[in-house]
Amino acid sequence: MSDTMKHIVLAKRPTGAPTDDDFRLEEAPVPQPGEGEVLVRVHYMSLDPYMRGRMDDAKSYATPVPVGGTMEGGAVGEVIASNDPNFAPGDFAFGMFGWATHGVQPGKMIRKLNPDHGPITAALGVLGMPGFTGWFGLTEYGKPQAGETVVVAAATGPVGSMVGQIAKAHGCRVVGVAGGPEKCKMAVETFGFDECLDHRAYADAKEMRAALAEACPKGVDVYFENVAGKVLEGVMPLMNVGGRIPVCGMISWYNAGALGGNAGEGGKDQLPKMWRMILVNRLHVHGFIISDHWDRYSEFLQAVGPMVAKGEVKFVEDIGEGLENAPRAFMGMLEGKNKGKQIVKVI
Amino acid sequence: MSDTMKHIVLAKRPTGAPTDDDFRLEEAPVPQPGEGEVLVRVHYMSLDPYMRGRMDDAKSYATPVPVGGTMEGGAVGEVIASNDPNFAPGDFAFGMFGWATHGVQPGKMIRKLNPDHGPITAALGVLGMPGFTGWFGLTEYGKPQAGETVVVAAATGPVGSMVGQIAKAHGCRVVGVAGGPEKCKMAVETFGFDECLDHRAYADAKEMRAALAEACPKGVDVYFENVAGKVLEGVMPLMNVGGRIPVCGMISWYNAGALGGNAGEGGKDQLPKMWRMILVNRLHVHGFIISDHWDRYSEFLQAVGPMVAKGEVKFVEDIGEGLENAPRAFMGMLEGKNKGKQIVKVI
Repeated sequence: MSDTMKHIVLAKRPTGAPTDDDFRLEEAPVPQPGEGEVLVRVHYMSLDPYMRGRMDDAKSYATPVPVGGTMEGGAVGEVIASNDPNFAPGDFAFGMFGWATHGVQPGKMIRKLNPDHGPITAALGVLGMPGFTGWFGLTEYGKPQAGETVVVAAATGPVGSMVGQIAKAHGCRVVGVAGGPEKCKMAVETFGFDECLDHRAYADAKEMRAALAEACPKGVDVYFENVAGKVLEGVMPLMNVGGRIPVCGMISWYNAGALGGNAGEGGKDQLPKMWRMILVNRLHVHGFIISDHWDRYSEFLQAVGPMVAKGEVKFVEDIGEGLENAPRAFMGMLEGKNKGKQIVKVI
Repeated sequence: MSDTMKHIVLAKRPTGAPTDDDFRLEEAPVPQPGEGEVLVRVHYMSLDPYMRGRMDDAKSYATPVPVGGTMEGGAVGEVIASNDPNFAPGDFAFGMFGWATHGVQPGKMIRKLNPDHGPITAALGVLGMPGFTGWFGLTEYGKPQAGETVVVAAATGPVGSMVGQIAKAHGCRVVGVAGGPEKCKMAVETFGFDECLDHRAYADAKEMRAALAEACPKGVDVYFENVAGKVLEGVMPLMNVGGRIPVCGMISWYNAGALGGNAGEGGKDQLPKMWRMILVNRLHVHGFIISDHWDRYSEFLQAVGPMVAKGEVKFVEDIGEGLENAPRAFMGMLEGKNKGKQIVKVI
């Protein structure tokens, strides 16, 4: 075992889309676990859109990563030293170890994995935070009813694909939006969406709306909001009375800077238009941050774990190689280049 | 009894703020009640912001008033002929008789009033649709908890004053927004608001926000949305995590034309800013139209009727004289010239 670990730090705060210069690979001594702590050798780390938010200094739901600090994130790996009686070397665990080859966390902050229950990477995607986000937001706030229409973008991502599959299990018509024909094919053929629209084929919110209107002849009852931008603007006029909008992210706006900037898809009258639609159609819009709801996580695992085991809920992973390539994989994910849940193999 | 009635019709659809030319006073024969119908001589009619929406042709929650049609609205008056056994001449009733001296409605669509229970005008305001709107939206979607801070604009109007008083009854700190020092004084002295800000004293959303921030040192837990514009933009950044926003109207945008137009208070990045705040602060935004919820009206009357009778819930009425002056009173109300619930005495 090497005494040196590698980790990626935030070199500076990005303006717009992150670039290579915003990250720096550093070395450090492998940390030693203190009392009650566990040292893990990371095998796989997760890349998720929320991390873009952590790079900014704006008010958000979590403290930003400090400049010079290790990029945050969930990861899975093998316990190599433990001062917590619940963990022994050789155990596999999930924890917030960051973009790093090694990490130390208090034992109570990490979760043991059973490798017999499937690939450990599932803890980063389909049965981890993203899958939980999709399941929780859809069931808690979307309240899908049989026969209703559900729209979700980033349809092949780990959140969108969970939303679509759970909505199908509720008897809904499910229309996805994704970038490019290959992803759209995956949404329909792998994840069972009724239809999937390639947002690149539509120049603006108006065209997006026309395509969505055709795909949703009975209007939209639930719009699971994870991208914003022209999909949001396109879908809002199609919302049915009493529609629900769980809001868990806005990937298309993340690169716009802390508080927007590149919006304006629809001009300066978008805000009153949007607000008026909320009123006229009696919409219920629920912002949520999944980290508020971990008390429901075991319920999710009980409900969805067996569906994954039986193959009723599918998942697709896009696994990059090498910690040093994590920044590029992250930038690519923000541009939608990944196919399925973006993961980096670290070991 | 005259055989002729007067009514005000929509002469044409307004562009922006309505003007005299958009209305026309007409005469017609007094209609006769058909089977199951009741003829009422109107004593008082209500003027409400939602009527501005009815003048436009845009998709809304209700059919627009046709050009040449009688302006819609609630009114109270005396039954002068009845083909419904539940109503007899001399009874007083509330119904949607419109801007008119007389009206016919099916008996089952009108509600008998007991003049012993207070002035019949209360059925247009504090114990009518506006009061019900404030009570329902606040309790159902705002869910005020003792110690929380509630903000409501149009604080001396019949919706805002109900919201403020019910919120106080729940043990909240209540901050109102109103137009001009006189109304602010009324909000505090008559309706018991903790504080009331004069929105005219603040040039833009930024100044509005600074004043609200000072008045709400613990942030805002419930923003009851009935005006939009700079109050909305000012209050959004102050919302606490888990905040609730019942949305019942947007008077400041009503005159902007069907789907916005004069917005832009904060520039073209307002929409992503707003959406991001919904996410970051896990806000719950609920559009509602009170006409969906009449099944809860008797619950409202039971809860709030006694509070009004005991003087625990105050109300203020601004009563104009003469049907022919209704358009001017309406235009004035949209500009905030009324003090309290705007009513027109018709007889």
